Parts: sequence; structure tokens; C-alpha cells
Amino acid sequence: MSMEIKYPNGKSNKVTKAQPSKKPNMTKSHLGVDFEQAINDSNSYYLSQNMASIYKKPTPIQIVKVDYPARNKARIVEAYYRTPSTTDYNGIYKGYYIDFEAKSCHSTSFSFKHIYVHQIKHLETVMQMGGISFIIIEFSLKKEVFVLPTRLLLEKYNESLNGGRQSIPYEYFKENGYLIHYGFLPRLDYLNVVDKLIELRNKIF
Amino acid sequence: MSMEIKYPNGKSNKVTKAQPSKKPNMTKSHLGVDFEQAINDSNSYYLSQNMASIYKKPTPIQIVKVDYPARNKARIVEAYYRTPSTTDYNGIYKGYYIDFEAKSCHSTSFSFKHIYVHQIKHLETVMQMGGISFIIIEFSLKKEVFVLPTRLLLEKYNESLNGGRQSIPYEYFKENGYLIHYGFLPRLDYLNVVDKLIELRNKIF
Repeated sequence: MSMEIKYPNGKSNKVTKAQPSKKPNMTKSHLGVDFEQAINDSNSYYLSQNMASIYKKPTPIQIVKVDYPARNKARIVEAYYRTPSTTDYNGIYKGYYIDFEAKSCHSTSFSFKHIYVHQIKHLETVMQMGGISFIIIEFSLKKEVFVLPTRLLLEKYNESLNGGRQSIPYEYFKENGYLIHYGFLPRLDYLNVVDKLIELRNKIF
Repeated sequence: MSMEIKYPNGKSNKVTKAQPSKKPNMTKSHLGVDFEQAINDSNSYYLSQNMASIYKKPTPIQIVKVDYPARNKARIVEAYYRTPSTTDYNGIYKGYYIDFEAKSCHSTSFSFKHIYVHQIKHLETVMQMGGISFIIIEFSLKKEVFVLPTRLLLEKYNESLNGGRQSIPYEYFKENGYLIHYGFLPRLDYLNVVDKLIELRNKIF
């Protein structure tokens, strides 16, 4: 998701300085709050309809110091962001294990700088273990959202390791990904695409 | 898991004051760090053997204020613990969605005060959606660890709502749960029990 800090008052702030050297460069994907909220709202809707139980994982935080003000709840006064072990979202749908990463993208291509190598590896592991894994990319300028299955992500990633392009262009998503339409309930019906992925997989195996 | 704050220096401190009113009373389960580590180590082992991909979810934190000291990474200077939406652990094993809560228990029974109602509900939802869900309880004084399937947890929980016992005694786990033995690799082979749960479920359906 976006690498912004989301303050409870709704304001936000870029964390350019906050990024350790291994952290993906998210400076071009800093307006993804609405997109993230659309996914979270969709997940709440799916759960309310008993369709799926999919949640965003909390951001991992390294806690260093905690204060206990009298009569108040514990207050963390020193902590740092940690690198997430896996992806943003996981859960269950139609008995399948679902796992994905969601990114908002403000240029005309999705750069591999925007995702950790170990997250790509995690998506691959899930795929190999029989789960349904993918990335959801929002091209914010075009207001279009695509699902790209892990198999295709890996294909492009391996090309990038062998001297190919270091990003996946919008056109590739348009031709090979699955467009998700914004709607009312759910706001982003990505399980509709997951149905297609399940169908496709069951044809292959 | 334990409701202690785990400081990076290895010291710890109870968070009795930190608990909002709805928070389970964990004061009797405050020594579960080794137990949690045994589960995490087992998950690392399972992943290294390509058997399963199961992770502990990060503790949810509400971030209020972040500082950006020059040349340093972002430092969170005001934050609070939030109530977890779901359970501690989830992932994939043999294509099944796996979901469980782990608790260390320092008395001779597991009290329903030690788990959130919405966590029990979450385990039930997962079960109904075709996942494998359960709790893992360590009785620390006896150094015994049991898996209790959600179906049995729900049975005892519903009894407690209808005037029955507000806890599940050790003897019940011993008779109806599945003992997990501590070993070397993995330290806690709970997937061995999950195999039995899968087998049992496939007999029923």
C-alpha cells in the first residue's frame, strides 16, 4: 500500500526519510489512501455477506519504550517501522487461501522498486502451495485498477532480472491483467476476478 | 498470546493498566514468550521445508505522532495498542487456509476471559468457510500444549453463555484436545495435529 503515515486526524505525511535502504521507493505512490480504503470496505462487505474473510495485516512496528501514565492506557513513546514479512492482505474465500499485495501507482508503469523481493517470493510460495495469490495495482491517474496473477508477475520479474525492463507498463496490465470496476457494494469487486483465477487454475490442473 | 509488552532488551512489563475495558484479562498468562517463540520457530521450519506458509500477524498499533530526526529513520513518538481484529496466526498448509489463536495459560483451566468474543466468532467464520481453525493452549505449569478445534471451543463457549463454566478445564483438553509434543525440529509439531483435523473433516463431509 502507500508508504504514507496515516494520522488519526486524516492528515498524512510522506515518509521519504523514513525508508531504510532496502525499502521500496514509494515516493510516486503516495496517494493510495482511498484505494486502500476501497479494498478494506470491500472486505468488510464480503465478510458481512459471509462470502470471504480477508483482512489487511497490521503494519509491523518495533516497540522500544512504553509509558504508563496514571489512569491512562499504555502509551508507546518510542517505536520504529519494520519491514513487513509478507504481503498486505490474506484470508479465505470459497475454501481457498487468498494472499495479495495492493499498490497505488502514479506513473504509467509499475516499477519493481515498489515491491520487496521477499514479497514476490512469498506470493510465489503461496501459489506453489495451492493458494490464490496476486497483486492489485491502481493506476491512479487513469483511475483504473488491475489484478495481475503471480504467475505473470513472476514472468515479468524474471525478465527484469535478465536485463529486461525494471517495471511493468500500464499496457501490459491492460492486455494481460484483469480490470476491476469501481462500484457501490462492494466498492472494488476483486473477488469477481478471483473467481476467474480459480476457474482458470482448475482448468489447468 | 501473552499481553505483555516485550521490550527489545528482553525485559518485560505487565500491561494491566493498558487494557481497555473489553480487553481479555491476561494477567495469568504473562509468561508465554517461549511458547510464542516455539510456534514462530516451527513456522520458520515448516516454511524452510516448503510444507506451510504460516505467519504471526503484527500487533496492531494506532500511530499518533511521528518524528523525522535528520539522517535517521522515522521515529514514532506517540502510539497506542489497538485491539486485534482477528487471531494471531494464519496461513496456508496443503492448500487449506489455517487460522488459530495461541495462548499460554498459567492455571489449571483456560478462562474465556483470555480470548476476545470477536476472535471466537472469527474462528467460527473460518471454520464455516472451509478453513481449518483452532486454538493452541499451553498449560505452562504442566508444560503441555494442546490443540482444541473450533467446534469444541464453540461448544464450551456456548455452554458458558448458558450458565455453564466460564472456563475450559485442563482435563477437558486432555480428554478432547490433541496433545502436541515439544521436539527439536520443529519445536512444536502442530501440523501433525492439523493433519488429523483435515482427515477428520474429510470423513465428516
